[in-house]
Amino acid sequence: MKKKINIGLLGLGTVGTGVVKLLHANGQSIAQKVGAAIEVKKIMVRNANKPRSIAVDHLITTDFDDILNDPEIDIVVELMGGETPAKDYMLRALQAGKQVVTANKDVMAKYGRELFAAAEAKQVDLMFEASVGGGIPIIRPLKQCLAGNKITEIMGIINGTTNYMLTKMTNEFLDFDDVLKEAQAKGYAEADPTADVGGFDAARKIAILASIAFGARVSLDDVSVEGITRISKDDIEYASELGYIIKLLAIAKEDERGIDVRVHPAFVPGNHPLASVNDVFNAIYIKGDAIGEAMFYGRGAGEMPTASAVVGDIIDVSRNIQHGLTSRILCTCFDQKNFCPIEKTESPYYIRMLVEDKPGVFAAIASAFAEQQVSLHSVIQRRKINKCAEVVLITYRVTDAHLRSAISMIKELSVVSKIQSIVRVEAEEI
Amino acid sequence: MKKKINIGLLGLGTVGTGVVKLLHANGQSIAQKVGAAIEVKKIMVRNANKPRSIAVDHLITTDFDDILNDPEIDIVVELMGGETPAKDYMLRALQAGKQVVTANKDVMAKYGRELFAAAEAKQVDLMFEASVGGGIPIIRPLKQCLAGNKITEIMGIINGTTNYMLTKMTNEFLDFDDVLKEAQAKGYAEADPTADVGGFDAARKIAILASIAFGARVSLDDVSVEGITRISKDDIEYASELGYIIKLLAIAKEDERGIDVRVHPAFVPGNHPLASVNDVFNAIYIKGDAIGEAMFYGRGAGEMPTASAVVGDIIDVSRNIQHGLTSRILCTCFDQKNFCPIEKTESPYYIRMLVEDKPGVFAAIASAFAEQQVSLHSVIQRRKINKCAEVVLITYRVTDAHLRSAISMIKELSVVSKIQSIVRVEAEEI
Repeated sequence: MKKKINIGLLGLGTVGTGVVKLLHANGQSIAQKVGAAIEVKKIMVRNANKPRSIAVDHLITTDFDDILNDPEIDIVVELMGGETPAKDYMLRALQAGKQVVTANKDVMAKYGRELFAAAEAKQVDLMFEASVGGGIPIIRPLKQCLAGNKITEIMGIINGTTNYMLTKMTNEFLDFDDVLKEAQAKGYAEADPTADVGGFDAARKIAILASIAFGARVSLDDVSVEGITRISKDDIEYASELGYIIKLLAIAKEDERGIDVRVHPAFVPGNHPLASVNDVFNAIYIKGDAIGEAMFYGRGAGEMPTASAVVGDIIDVSRNIQHGLTSRILCTCFDQKNFCPIEKTESPYYIRMLVEDKPGVFAAIASAFAEQQVSLHSVIQRRKINKCAEVVLITYRVTDAHLRSAISMIKELSVVSKIQSIVRVEAEEI
Repeated sequence: MKKKINIGLLGLGTVGTGVVKLLHANGQSIAQKVGAAIEVKKIMVRNANKPRSIAVDHLITTDFDDILNDPEIDIVVELMGGETPAKDYMLRALQAGKQVVTANKDVMAKYGRELFAAAEAKQVDLMFEASVGGGIPIIRPLKQCLAGNKITEIMGIINGTTNYMLTKMTNEFLDFDDVLKEAQAKGYAEADPTADVGGFDAARKIAILASIAFGARVSLDDVSVEGITRISKDDIEYASELGYIIKLLAIAKEDERGIDVRVHPAFVPGNHPLASVNDVFNAIYIKGDAIGEAMFYGRGAGEMPTASAVVGDIIDVSRNIQHGLTSRILCTCFDQKNFCPIEKTESPYYIRMLVEDKPGVFAAIASAFAEQQVSLHSVIQRRKINKCAEVVLITYRVTDAHLRSAISMIKELSVVSKIQSIVRVEAEEI
């Protein structure tokens, strides 16, 4: 048994700083759990001279080789973010026989297979709990606690920025642009918000979760992605009137048609556990054949919540080191599976459109839907905009292909001036 | 690496049957994860001739020694429930060098220390994820994912029977006795419902969670317990009027005054994540210094959800066996800690009382509270019952000792005919 386990930290931004603080604050209880002190021995940063909030100047290096070639460093903790050079450093660390802990969703979603192969070859650990859901335990529960289940569905609110924005739009009846500005001012959204509001951050995370849940590699390219930029406060108001909340959902389903992984805004019934996940909180809702439904809720980002997940991994790897056994659980993508083409995926849909306000219009629309086997569950026609009437529909469950055909037909109708919104309804059997 | 891992099952009730079914249904993917087939080799039951829903007659024995002395049996899975003879069997299995998985909260809450010592001595695993929260992953997240945190608070809805009853009382304005009868008819409550409605089932579970969260042994005797039998539909109506939901909470807190563990009905603010945990669902809400808040939600009982947790443990132990390393994480109660006496615990309180309906009465009550440093947050005086007025109060945060003294004084007042209810308010800073 070692008396000390040494960490080489890559990156000292928000999360890196949190990890140093947490290892220090709870060092004593962590040492009891591991049977050894855990010490940050070196920290690699880009700029050695940047002022820092913690006193770690003596640990700073700008040269990755200082960490890679230090035989006393047991675990490399990668918290730089981004693909380059993080992936290269992680790969080289694994190849050098070092354990790796990371919070990097970009790298894990894209290079998971390659990194796991390197870990396997050297029989070392590669842990990444912090890459999805920040502090929320989700990777380990999926890989271990729920390992006896056939997971059929994951629905996650796994991007805090967009959930903050949608919550704000819902509670204060604000428009997307205004809320984005405020989120940027508060530091919840970046200057270039594309990764968040475009759904790409959530897409990387759901690719990681789907890979674990279905035991087959799902990469970013397999995820169909739509962001929240087209959601207006009108949609949110209609949702509320119909008993729904609009959330950006990351969805992964598996059935006899294959694996279906997508990120898009969705109508969620107001009484569903995901509907009350507000602000920057994240939640991952899971269906499995044995467990039924379960949900994991918490802070999906931030200095200390993310540090919580990273330090949990560090403790787990350290316990493995102490017992002389790393690489206990590595890649669990044993199968190759087919994907369900998006056209075959099914759900109810919400549709909002502007039509001429005269007799017979609704009959024309309804018969176009009927022709494509789309049944209507509920209809609201209330508001007038200029000389048009706004019609809002919720369909029964229908394939994406049938819905698209119906929409094409309806667009051709002379009485329809505009299809304003199409949003899927999830988590409801209608 | 073994090609087959053999299970000896103790008990073939609801959960045992679920475990056999689940190992069969998902056998292929489980074998991939473990690198070996997992097979139930023997099943010990009390009555060998009972008709069963699954074809396992060839595995049945009534003699524990058949399992204990079978050198091919790697893991003993204890699903008999109750203390006797389950604890004795588990201890003997551990002493014989067998791995043990159990769903037994009674035994784990009372004999955890002794069993862990036996596991430690033989360097074998003892896992018990199913003992709290049924299928919800909570033991492993606490022991591993959140191991870097100082956990300060756990609030759990961890008894499905009482949550079903309180949900029903809330939604349908029914009284305790009527709901209990219905729950018994549906099989959600037992003929003798004491363990559930008296809070003792939840007390055992919170003792287990507190022991892990605080790293110090908390036993059933350390838990202050109050059930839901005194909650009336009037209390539920007032709660609702004041913006609260009544839940049976299992609470564990640690601060500078010590560890405070209790089970009692509580007013929970309507917008708290626990407030919308309904019916037989369970949830465990956790506060830690790094993670902030997190919640784990799902089915806390039932054949397949509980089997999900048991099989998760079986897979984990099997992975350990395959890597030649069991006993990786055993008892984590490294410290002895002081308990906070119940008199020193603090919370706001809800109080309902009957008083004479005449001038000056409220002033008398208010000065009795003031004398004991109890401030009042809100007051409702509305209903008349016979010639009395019903007064409902929510106090600000106050110690249990001060509250009790105030209540004693108020009971002495000639104008007060009856103190009808006293319920703590939790999860709110007032």
